[in-house]
Amino acid sequence: MAVFERLAHLCSATESSLSSNLFLSPPFHSFTIFLLELSSSPIPPLLSPSPSFTPIEKTFNFDIPVNDPEKDAFSIYYGDQQVIIGGFVLFFPNYSTFLGKPGFYVEDLFVRECYRRKGFGKMLLSAVAKQAVKMGYGRVEWVVLDWNVNAITFYEQMGAKVLPEWRICRLTGDALQAYQNANV
Amino acid sequence: MAVFERLAHLCSATESSLSSNLFLSPPFHSFTIFLLELSSSPIPPLLSPSPSFTPIEKTFNFDIPVNDPEKDAFSIYYGDQQVIIGGFVLFFPNYSTFLGKPGFYVEDLFVRECYRRKGFGKMLLSAVAKQAVKMGYGRVEWVVLDWNVNAITFYEQMGAKVLPEWRICRLTGDALQAYQNANV
Repeated sequence: MAVFERLAHLCSATESSLSSNLFLSPPFHSFTIFLLELSSSPIPPLLSPSPSFTPIEKTFNFDIPVNDPEKDAFSIYYGDQQVIIGGFVLFFPNYSTFLGKPGFYVEDLFVRECYRRKGFGKMLLSAVAKQAVKMGYGRVEWVVLDWNVNAITFYEQMGAKVLPEWRICRLTGDALQAYQNANV
Repeated sequence: MAVFERLAHLCSATESSLSSNLFLSPPFHSFTIFLLELSSSPIPPLLSPSPSFTPIEKTFNFDIPVNDPEKDAFSIYYGDQQVIIGGFVLFFPNYSTFLGKPGFYVEDLFVRECYRRKGFGKMLLSAVAKQAVKMGYGRVEWVVLDWNVNAITFYEQMGAKVLPEWRICRLTGDALQAYQNANV
């Protein structure tokens, strides 16, 4: 995704930085990931299902087989059954004082290239929206680059509005570190 | 704040909606508020201090007394001592897969009108930045309306950058509720 957004020079995540901050808390109350798991036969039920979420299952029929050159690198095994990770959505709660309600903020929505244009992105984002409704939350929000016309069209088709007036402010790097010893 | 942003028609928070979602978890790991408490004499220490945060104290000298017509409505009492709430900042953790690190997202920064232009806004936002550095977080982010030139200047003076290309996407109201029974 960083490459697509022309922002790879800003991407400094590592396996250890990811694992030290993710997968530490129950779903929905902090950083949460829905994984897109793909298999040509039904995926067996989880051995330790989460009490707060039932995996969503859906059958897709493809006209032609998908050629996934990185299939093995993105596979996990449920017993003997190979399951391919096709994408993910990472989201977490946010809060609106206007609504007086929490919502979800979607940080990343990603489908691996060979699985695009098949409805998986819509499935992942819809799953977040459905969970937000289930929890009584008031909004689902995310950001998009203003030149990414395809993404904007896709989001608008899903019912989202692009807000023209708001801009993101970011304090990071040395400018943030300067506050370490600030006499606040 | 809703009035200033010309968005009062979108503001539907109530006392009960606020209290049912805020003040429920320890600071910093979910929705967190720093309150600006003002008093003409030193504020006594908390009876139950938080192990994760020491209140920041600062002495300000005003040239002329502040006329606060809503003083009593915004007061709390520490024993006999009247303490005025002058503003607040509401923030919560976010997560960047680019950095592989959490950050803080600032939802609201508000100083009551009669206490503005005295450095309190800077104090509140700096306190969030300082806490982010303390926790090893990578960013502090918030949003601003593109016509709010005074706010943008203030934020830039604090070291923040305004990102020109990103736009917020929002799924809310009926468009969100439509996902309740969606066949995801």
